[in-house]
Amino acid sequence: MKPAAVPASTVVFSSLGQRAQPPTIAKLMAMALETPNLLSLAAGFTDNATLPVDFVRAATEAMLGNPGDREFLQYGTNQGRPRLRELLAQRLANNDAEIGLDAAALQRGLFITNGSQQALYLAMQVLAESGDIILVDRPSYFVFLEMLTGLGLRAVSMPVDAHGKIDASALGGLLDGLASKGETQRIKAVYFVSYFSNPSGRSLDVTEKNAIATQLASRGLHIPVVEDAAYRELYYREAPTAPSVLSLPAWAKFPKLYTATLTKPFATGLKVGYGFCTDEAWLKKMLHVKGHHDFGTAHFNQAILEHGLISGNYDRQLALIRPAYERKMRALHETLVREGLLSLGWSWDEPAGGLYLWLKAPDALDTGLDSAFCRECLAAGVLYVPGELCFGDDAPKNRIRLSFGVLNERDLAEAGRRFVGVARRFSP
Amino acid sequence: MKPAAVPASTVVFSSLGQRAQPPTIAKLMAMALETPNLLSLAAGFTDNATLPVDFVRAATEAMLGNPGDREFLQYGTNQGRPRLRELLAQRLANNDAEIGLDAAALQRGLFITNGSQQALYLAMQVLAESGDIILVDRPSYFVFLEMLTGLGLRAVSMPVDAHGKIDASALGGLLDGLASKGETQRIKAVYFVSYFSNPSGRSLDVTEKNAIATQLASRGLHIPVVEDAAYRELYYREAPTAPSVLSLPAWAKFPKLYTATLTKPFATGLKVGYGFCTDEAWLKKMLHVKGHHDFGTAHFNQAILEHGLISGNYDRQLALIRPAYERKMRALHETLVREGLLSLGWSWDEPAGGLYLWLKAPDALDTGLDSAFCRECLAAGVLYVPGELCFGDDAPKNRIRLSFGVLNERDLAEAGRRFVGVARRFSP
Repeated sequence: MKPAAVPASTVVFSSLGQRAQPPTIAKLMAMALETPNLLSLAAGFTDNATLPVDFVRAATEAMLGNPGDREFLQYGTNQGRPRLRELLAQRLANNDAEIGLDAAALQRGLFITNGSQQALYLAMQVLAESGDIILVDRPSYFVFLEMLTGLGLRAVSMPVDAHGKIDASALGGLLDGLASKGETQRIKAVYFVSYFSNPSGRSLDVTEKNAIATQLASRGLHIPVVEDAAYRELYYREAPTAPSVLSLPAWAKFPKLYTATLTKPFATGLKVGYGFCTDEAWLKKMLHVKGHHDFGTAHFNQAILEHGLISGNYDRQLALIRPAYERKMRALHETLVREGLLSLGWSWDEPAGGLYLWLKAPDALDTGLDSAFCRECLAAGVLYVPGELCFGDDAPKNRIRLSFGVLNERDLAEAGRRFVGVARRFSP
Repeated sequence: MKPAAVPASTVVFSSLGQRAQPPTIAKLMAMALETPNLLSLAAGFTDNATLPVDFVRAATEAMLGNPGDREFLQYGTNQGRPRLRELLAQRLANNDAEIGLDAAALQRGLFITNGSQQALYLAMQVLAESGDIILVDRPSYFVFLEMLTGLGLRAVSMPVDAHGKIDASALGGLLDGLASKGETQRIKAVYFVSYFSNPSGRSLDVTEKNAIATQLASRGLHIPVVEDAAYRELYYREAPTAPSVLSLPAWAKFPKLYTATLTKPFATGLKVGYGFCTDEAWLKKMLHVKGHHDFGTAHFNQAILEHGLISGNYDRQLALIRPAYERKMRALHETLVREGLLSLGWSWDEPAGGLYLWLKAPDALDTGLDSAFCRECLAAGVLYVPGELCFGDDAPKNRIRLSFGVLNERDLAEAGRRFVGVARRFSP
């Protein structure tokens, strides 16, 4: 039932308010809601079956069963729990052995956020104004791209080669092109998802990371870099070998923000992310603005994750889900292969971590949000994220992100069959 | 130990980044850290002794002991858990019987945030640009005032009479004055803490609320109103009688946002707030921006509070803490009286709810952040919030906020004695 009459709004919005738009994917989700028996390969949700009920219970029992001074139910500090920050600093030092900072410096630079998303938002708020440019990977994380739009910022993609790798000389050309248009001063930061990327599933190798630094540095552009490592710990078998920008000498002179999440690979319902910033002034600005957002992330949740890290349950959970996500990836991947998608001219890489398959359809096939292909998939009961949403600019129409995070293996296989069935009908 | 050398930052900040400053109170907190045996009447924290360990445990046990599909550990929606929003809509309708909206409309307008602070931030982001004016109560919530500064907005206080009540004709004069300076179009919203205010402890009565609406409406200014009801349920004996702007006919034509918190009177460590917005366009803009901040408040926390509301434990906790806070208020209030603060020319009202005493020192006494009085209090081992922080403009120097949320009754009495001891030394 609709309400009888909603009065027209008389509210005058700020320019930020005027720019604020529904997420593009909302349209897809609305269509999905009207489709019975839909299998969604769209949502970036994680696997319900392996959510760590027992580990979270162990934490809440330990905390609430022997509450001490109950401080975990009280406000915490804006920057986050000191012990949790200390544990994360150690973890960072273990992942990036060459950071070259002592434990105290690491802990000082670490801050806790409402998911890593908030760290990204704070970074952009304090760095960039409407009209400014952020260099992004290609493809890139579409929620980040929509955030940039919301803040009035322009995403400019860093060029890649035919294998999806950073193309150093094309990047140099892009930077020179911006310079010739007098736009160099508008470039405020560079952003990339470096491990098992959303959406591409691929990781940047050291050569690519160094190439970005070199192209920027050779032009005197030591701009802030934001490395989004949300999926770094979600590898299936082997931890990725490329160090983060925190420990690569090519990035030494750049102000750096490394963002990550504790809860994406654990329990997304707890929503605790973190950032580590090497630049004290930048860090402070982000913290001051966080003070205005919320003056600190939910303290209870931080305490649960602190317990998980100390008890080892956090790493036990990672050990459980890594093979589980690999099995899920294979269930979808192998269905697509078995059903003949390769022979229809589609291609993709098998990822070594993360939650996504990134498909390339034949060049002529439009798989965008408004395409007949997308509508047919919905009609066939399968939903995906159109890849066109994942590009800062010059979006191709023939890319697709499939997420295997949510569905079980049987449903993934069924969704894969439905998908290939539609692809076959669109094959020339 | 200080690090050997922190390289100077080369980061260029946005105008928002440039404006971002440490909270004024940070200076006080830093001084406090260097003072042993300090008793703080400054922090707006809540009472540790009455934090609802058993009620939170009942919720986590029910959820984790019988997890069903574990959805509470998974991402939720951006707007918040439907059942929680439904429960809050019912609660709102119970508090404000005359809202005149059906349950579905109430639920549609309700959204869950990271504390009510985030709802305030979202509201300001989508409404106002740098240089715009927000009308605020006098005194007002100082974290909100610092947020306005951070967003580049100008707080303009609504005039009050000698009793601290809204002065309707002076407000009219203020609005006319702004009009004569061509600033009417810059007034983007009106904000007030309407129940047991932080810092004043007082509630706006119906006459005052109506006066604000009337003065604005008579000038055609149906601007958005933000009513901050954070302390509405923290009364000691009697629920406040003044309806919110949601159900006052004088406000019928205004776009309205009502903000409140579930966790201030329950467990601040869970940090779940909510807003109810009567204007669909405004609501949507705030939700779109929330999608960029974090795409949804921690789902687990929402589920804990949902359990608390359904089980009745939430209201049991309120029933427990109301007399506890009254006792704490009285412990401090009576110490100040007994030690003779009134006879030194100080005055204050005894609040009927909330966490604060709001003192007026003799006119000539400077109790500001940089005052000798403040330093002497620190030296005597007692900390307060200088009232000058709580004014949008034209801040008097002789106001003080004392919080009795944190300390136990014995420490409150000792802190009160220390405070009056200093006041006596500064008495002419």
